[in-house]
Amino acid sequence: MIQVGVNGYGTIGKRVADAVATQPDMKLTGVAKTRPNYEAEAAVRKGYPLYAAVPDRADRFREAGIDLAGEAEDMVMTADVVVDTTPSGIGADNLELYERYDTPAVFQGGEDGSLVDASFNARANYDAATAEDVDSVRVVSCNTTGLSRLLAPLREEYGVEKARITLVRRGGDPGQTSRGPINDILPDPVEIPSHHGPDVNTIFPDVDIDTLGVKVPATLMHLHSVNVTLGAEPSAAAVRELLSAEPRLFLVPEETGIDGTGKLKEFAMDTGRPRGDLWENCIWEDSVSVEGSDLYLFQSIHQESDVIPENIDAVRALLDREDRETSMATTDETLGVGLESLFDGRRQRVVPKGDD
Amino acid sequence: MIQVGVNGYGTIGKRVADAVATQPDMKLTGVAKTRPNYEAEAAVRKGYPLYAAVPDRADRFREAGIDLAGEAEDMVMTADVVVDTTPSGIGADNLELYERYDTPAVFQGGEDGSLVDASFNARANYDAATAEDVDSVRVVSCNTTGLSRLLAPLREEYGVEKARITLVRRGGDPGQTSRGPINDILPDPVEIPSHHGPDVNTIFPDVDIDTLGVKVPATLMHLHSVNVTLGAEPSAAAVRELLSAEPRLFLVPEETGIDGTGKLKEFAMDTGRPRGDLWENCIWEDSVSVEGSDLYLFQSIHQESDVIPENIDAVRALLDREDRETSMATTDETLGVGLESLFDGRRQRVVPKGDD
Repeated sequence: MIQVGVNGYGTIGKRVADAVATQPDMKLTGVAKTRPNYEAEAAVRKGYPLYAAVPDRADRFREAGIDLAGEAEDMVMTADVVVDTTPSGIGADNLELYERYDTPAVFQGGEDGSLVDASFNARANYDAATAEDVDSVRVVSCNTTGLSRLLAPLREEYGVEKARITLVRRGGDPGQTSRGPINDILPDPVEIPSHHGPDVNTIFPDVDIDTLGVKVPATLMHLHSVNVTLGAEPSAAAVRELLSAEPRLFLVPEETGIDGTGKLKEFAMDTGRPRGDLWENCIWEDSVSVEGSDLYLFQSIHQESDVIPENIDAVRALLDREDRETSMATTDETLGVGLESLFDGRRQRVVPKGDD
Repeated sequence: MIQVGVNGYGTIGKRVADAVATQPDMKLTGVAKTRPNYEAEAAVRKGYPLYAAVPDRADRFREAGIDLAGEAEDMVMTADVVVDTTPSGIGADNLELYERYDTPAVFQGGEDGSLVDASFNARANYDAATAEDVDSVRVVSCNTTGLSRLLAPLREEYGVEKARITLVRRGGDPGQTSRGPINDILPDPVEIPSHHGPDVNTIFPDVDIDTLGVKVPATLMHLHSVNVTLGAEPSAAAVRELLSAEPRLFLVPEETGIDGTGKLKEFAMDTGRPRGDLWENCIWEDSVSVEGSDLYLFQSIHQESDVIPENIDAVRALLDREDRETSMATTDETLGVGLESLFDGRRQRVVPKGDD
């Protein structure tokens, strides 16, 4: 069993901890947290050993009536691997601690690509993390994960001449009460390209990609307006079929009446997904269009959860325990990734929709 | 003096009426309205002759204590030209009335292009409306107007190989209280292209353009994420210079600290613009980027007002009273179009910003 410590227990950390706990080959060493808030109490209720992320804060947990298993350093010492889910930039400060105990570490997309030995997306470059000399990886951000998953099959099947993507970004997560905007549409950043294109290049160094970022008053998911100039001129039906074969891409069927991120999340909750999470890219099937060699589509990305399967795969890749197919299949099966399967019967009817 | 009747007195109609009233060569015959609401009262207070748009509604105006100058038909009879600013689709019903009295008519973008003799954008195709046999024109929608104004100089200077635009659309106008979404990002329409690309082709039939529409919870302005593959590889500075020479394009200077549509509207109101209107395309100067032959930029479009100068020019073009340059200059001077002029000193410093 792989002993996995999770350092940081916020939006990503709590989801990674839950995912680790369900893996057949992993055991959750515990989770480290800075503050004794509602999330810390939830961790204790779940029976997760809780560690104080900051040494001199142990008192505050005691005052809040929360039992600690120790300090983060104890967890790092015990674990075979640490998943660092601390806020952007804090991971860099933690690297020294992990190196001190020779504990391999998985960081998140908020850290700089130069911090780690490799940037990681399971579908796109799993083997970048399996190499002997790789001790740290970075699961790229939610948006970059979504783009990498989409570009991987397109590259393999058709080649990608150029990708141009406008990311319509949610202003903040549902719990981030101090973020904006309200009633505004902001170029964010104003400068072009946004950081997302260069970040995709940490996964696919040779992809020609320009990205533009916009921020709007919504909290549920991001939406990508995607244009990819392909190296071929396939039919839209062929592209739909290609994409629907990818377990982490979900083609939202037109007949479900799902018209936006609100209904997508409602659908996820109705199917019993924990926290209403959508681990898959949600691609509107009817938006998949091809004009010559120009592919267009809309996809929504659940910023709080799409990187969770990738974190699990990163653990196995970093320790070189499984190959890509085995790891992804195990992750998907244990978590329940793959909304496509709910519509399998339908697919056979819909995919050969004609060569539009 | 050109006698101009305005049929419909909502978001566009009230603005067109005000604009007509300030033109040296036009006289407002009056405005026609269906309901005696707050807008009707405002028209009367301004001294605009008010006509009942629907014959049997005269009673309702009387009950509300509002004096009528007559019915819409009287206005159509008297006017040299009617600007029809009724809701989408109603204009088509009114065409017969205008034809009955041989009154040329200017329609809005909500009507179908096939209704009229020509679709119109002052900068792009003024002369399409001056021809002898053209009795009706359609000022294209706010978004199409914004795109046409931008594409016109780019076509003339560099040629346009292909345009790909994502329109991040406001959910509704500030007064449209029943519209959504709240907290959502909707592909709208899901199908690609949206109607905007084909609509641009009513102005530029030969432009290769694909548009994607997204709807978000904001009311102030639309935002376009623009990619245009040019027929040349100019520097970003050269493109900025080209665009800043266009009176109806406003390059938002970075040093103003204007970061979104909220501050743009605030700025417009601070400069004393009526209703805080922004008749110009608002292009973020720092977003203007060139990558090879790919131009990228963000522009915001004030859906309530950018077509107002075009309606005024359409009146002159339809009656063949002035050439394009004279009409546009008169319109811009009387309304006060041209925010660029506020930054003229600055421009000379900023334009030669280097060949980034």
